[in-house]
Amino acid sequence: MNTNKIRVADYVADFLKNKKIDKIFMLTGYGAMYLNDAIKLQGIKYFAARNEAAAPMMAEAFARASGKVGAVCVTAGPGATNAIPGLAEAYVDSAPIIIISGQVEKKHTTHFMKIKNLRTYGTAEINIIPIVKPLTKFSAVVDAPNSIRYLLEKAYSSATSGRPGPVWLDIPLDVQQALINPNKLRSFKEKKVQGNKNNIQKIKKLIKIIKKSSSPILVVGNGVRQSNQIENLKKIIKILKIPVFFSRLGQDIISHDKKYIYGQAGVKGSLFCKKIMEKSDLLISFGSRLAVQFLGLKKEAISKKCKICMIDVDSSEIIKTSPYFYIKQDLKDFIPGFYRIIKKEKKYFNFQRWNAFCKKTKSENPIILQNKKNPIDLYYFMSRLGDLSPKNSFLITDAGSNYYIGGQVWKFKKNQREITSGCNAAMGLSIPLAIGAGVAKPKDNILAVTGDGSLELNIQELKTISHYNLNIKLFVINNGGYVSMIKWQDTVFSGRRLDTKEFTGAGTLNLKKIANAFDLKWYLIKNVNNIDKDLKKIFKIKGPLFVEVVTDNKQKIQSGFKNE
Amino acid sequence: MNTNKIRVADYVADFLKNKKIDKIFMLTGYGAMYLNDAIKLQGIKYFAARNEAAAPMMAEAFARASGKVGAVCVTAGPGATNAIPGLAEAYVDSAPIIIISGQVEKKHTTHFMKIKNLRTYGTAEINIIPIVKPLTKFSAVVDAPNSIRYLLEKAYSSATSGRPGPVWLDIPLDVQQALINPNKLRSFKEKKVQGNKNNIQKIKKLIKIIKKSSSPILVVGNGVRQSNQIENLKKIIKILKIPVFFSRLGQDIISHDKKYIYGQAGVKGSLFCKKIMEKSDLLISFGSRLAVQFLGLKKEAISKKCKICMIDVDSSEIIKTSPYFYIKQDLKDFIPGFYRIIKKEKKYFNFQRWNAFCKKTKSENPIILQNKKNPIDLYYFMSRLGDLSPKNSFLITDAGSNYYIGGQVWKFKKNQREITSGCNAAMGLSIPLAIGAGVAKPKDNILAVTGDGSLELNIQELKTISHYNLNIKLFVINNGGYVSMIKWQDTVFSGRRLDTKEFTGAGTLNLKKIANAFDLKWYLIKNVNNIDKDLKKIFKIKGPLFVEVVTDNKQKIQSGFKNE
Repeated sequence: MNTNKIRVADYVADFLKNKKIDKIFMLTGYGAMYLNDAIKLQGIKYFAARNEAAAPMMAEAFARASGKVGAVCVTAGPGATNAIPGLAEAYVDSAPIIIISGQVEKKHTTHFMKIKNLRTYGTAEINIIPIVKPLTKFSAVVDAPNSIRYLLEKAYSSATSGRPGPVWLDIPLDVQQALINPNKLRSFKEKKVQGNKNNIQKIKKLIKIIKKSSSPILVVGNGVRQSNQIENLKKIIKILKIPVFFSRLGQDIISHDKKYIYGQAGVKGSLFCKKIMEKSDLLISFGSRLAVQFLGLKKEAISKKCKICMIDVDSSEIIKTSPYFYIKQDLKDFIPGFYRIIKKEKKYFNFQRWNAFCKKTKSENPIILQNKKNPIDLYYFMSRLGDLSPKNSFLITDAGSNYYIGGQVWKFKKNQREITSGCNAAMGLSIPLAIGAGVAKPKDNILAVTGDGSLELNIQELKTISHYNLNIKLFVINNGGYVSMIKWQDTVFSGRRLDTKEFTGAGTLNLKKIANAFDLKWYLIKNVNNIDKDLKKIFKIKGPLFVEVVTDNKQKIQSGFKNE
Repeated sequence: MNTNKIRVADYVADFLKNKKIDKIFMLTGYGAMYLNDAIKLQGIKYFAARNEAAAPMMAEAFARASGKVGAVCVTAGPGATNAIPGLAEAYVDSAPIIIISGQVEKKHTTHFMKIKNLRTYGTAEINIIPIVKPLTKFSAVVDAPNSIRYLLEKAYSSATSGRPGPVWLDIPLDVQQALINPNKLRSFKEKKVQGNKNNIQKIKKLIKIIKKSSSPILVVGNGVRQSNQIENLKKIIKILKIPVFFSRLGQDIISHDKKYIYGQAGVKGSLFCKKIMEKSDLLISFGSRLAVQFLGLKKEAISKKCKICMIDVDSSEIIKTSPYFYIKQDLKDFIPGFYRIIKKEKKYFNFQRWNAFCKKTKSENPIILQNKKNPIDLYYFMSRLGDLSPKNSFLITDAGSNYYIGGQVWKFKKNQREITSGCNAAMGLSIPLAIGAGVAKPKDNILAVTGDGSLELNIQELKTISHYNLNIKLFVINNGGYVSMIKWQDTVFSGRRLDTKEFTGAGTLNLKKIANAFDLKWYLIKNVNNIDKDLKKIFKIKGPLFVEVVTDNKQKIQSGFKNE
């Protein structure tokens, strides 16, 4: 045996380590045994999820919080299919994560057998790649040990370039343990994306359009953070001096108390944003997909005369939006280029009247009713949570009322970050997202909000929080469960309810006992007059805490589109 | 408005009701709101899962226990992707289930937009059909309201015909609420499968092969039950008078104390089955896929001279096995035809010497060590559980030691049934499978075994058990967690352990607190001398019970292939 040779599994672990991925989310299993062993040997710190579904969600939050790539290792068959819910989240929310699944020996895979409609072959074997293909930027079975470098490099490049997203490699047991010479492997050559030479003309055209506008707004999405362009963006805002709106995943890019920053617009955005957007004649978008939740299903959030100028790296989103004008380019190239040109033209941007109108509209349509009453108004609680949260905190929401309200009231004044399920508004994400963020930033305060309905979906991961003693404060909104769903059952279907305590037992868990059973300390907030005192006390506690927050079960959501 | 017109959603609920599907597993959601409402209006009893992942698992067990089709309704986006883990189980284990997912309005789906690589469009929208296609027998988006009858009929036919399996229909919100005239819909015409005319010659050939054999065995799989051919099978066994072996999913077809019944063979089967199979010169299989877990990876469970004759409806399994002789036919046609012919030839089947050898082999290689000691030997516990279980009980196992041991020691003497994850041996299935069986057979005893590792994966569904007050006794084997995994970490990797209490907290939940937190009564079995008394007491309790069983954490598995 050549001593230069190492196992493919070790090559994989080395690769991750070299990419500075020193933490991984996994659930061990027979089909991934060499990978599991290599991860341990390489000293990559592994965090065990209690169900593989949550592992990619954790990795997604890890990626967002750390700016690195998130990594996941699962076993074959059910290990791989269990991970799909989290994969779907990472895909729609553009998180760069790499999922590696173990697989049975190659010759016992349906992939290798190539028999049509053969459902499974080896023990706990499922041909996972065709299933995950529509949810990944790149996916492949590692058939040949010597292809490992090429496939890892291609996967990594695909996850991180352009619009980020998840990738998946499936590695059979015999390939995992095959010996390879790491110096004799084919590498992957990244295709050079054509530069931005041609874009100077386009940038000039864009600037012309802006100059012609009397009421422009700038919409900023997650792409700006992912391209590391926040500082340049700030400079651009100073030059353009126009109102700035955020998409849901862009919310935390700049503090909302900074000049020109108006926060989140869209279906569940604020009324003042709605009123401003309706008057705008030009919407410039940087790295936002301009979702239907933002523009409305028929672009009803903007006026018919409003011109959309979209700058994005993802051509499918441009096609979907059919903007008036677009530049398809990575923001890491576009924003510096744009800045270089406009900084010479500072004096031409002057929208004083428009800004005055926007300011006035904001002050006349305040978001929050400072409704300090018992039972607690969720607007009041979420607003206090945001305001009192220490700097560098991570604020995390789950599906339902807390998602919408967090999106409206948080201001991200002290470099706070938000992590949430942006596109899917999926139930049950708070806990895994909090874990991912807590693993990435063990010293920061992770403040995660969930509802008593959403809590149930990944409740098993409470044990992950307590086991790893993560610095997570989990605020569980006890409003009797499924308030959002009961709302449409009452409105659309004249009160034919399905999700009630009687029918499904939704929202009837005893939260104190749940916290206790999963080895978490429990804390109760139920008096509005003590919220500030309670929160200050909670923020001083090190390590995890389960906080039950009893709120009004008739909570109304204020929104730009309608009051619900 | 024509008063004859009804909503598509109501047509779906009517269709299910007409197919005698009067219970459904679901989790409500905005994207499925009209479906949810129609289900309620139609009086279909709905059971809410706490995570959509578990709903198809419940439906699978419901289908197995009731002989009907299992039904699931989930919402769009994360509701649909969450359901994939359960879908995968139903697919590999051949369960006829129909999954209906809600979807956003058609014009806001990526399916309708047809833009390449568009990740999502409407709120919480994912194009689910391409993802689930490889895991279903049939799947489609219901694009046109008037196609609903055709698609439902086609889906139902596909789920139940040939080798059963899951099907999936995705119904956008606007289609759900569209009004249709139910009398003016196109129907689906089932393709007539060619009859068994040509098979008489093949049956005669098979009989010739049997007559020539000196040591034949009959392997019986789940297909026999699914084709309703158990009674005819019993008659055939009386005529052939040869040893009968079961696949894992066929285990409960005939009581193991009946003449000629030898129970489960295969990798984790008994040593005596192994020894008999090695001597056999003819293996006839009825409705078993002859998995690698049964024949071994290189068919090492049988001798080189052994001829395989396979009767199965799934041609891919026949191609995979490459048998000596096969008949591709539905057993509901084959078995009666085969019986009609062989019953006239009774006297020609005489394998006395072979049967004597098999009987002797069995008595010389008993499965169970009646190891009555503390800490409790899992063989002893599982054997007492099987023996003392009331008639018509459902015995359910989860991944790990209890799966293998249940498969070896249970005899199904009093019409007991087994439900388990057959192909995947997936962790965490016990609870949802128990719920599905409990919903199908509310008066029967559901005796489900799980491990303290597997428990965590679907722990949220404990609340489903307590809420619906299902007659489930859940036996949670407390052996310190992940015993199977620690075993290979110790053997293959010289003790480089990953799943230990220190590293991942596996198996460290306080089970009494967990039971309590999910509103279940808790019972402890830890003294081997009280097992019988404990079990008798438990079986008398009506409704759910969480039973912690403390067993040996150094449990060894006996098997035909090797002792582990």
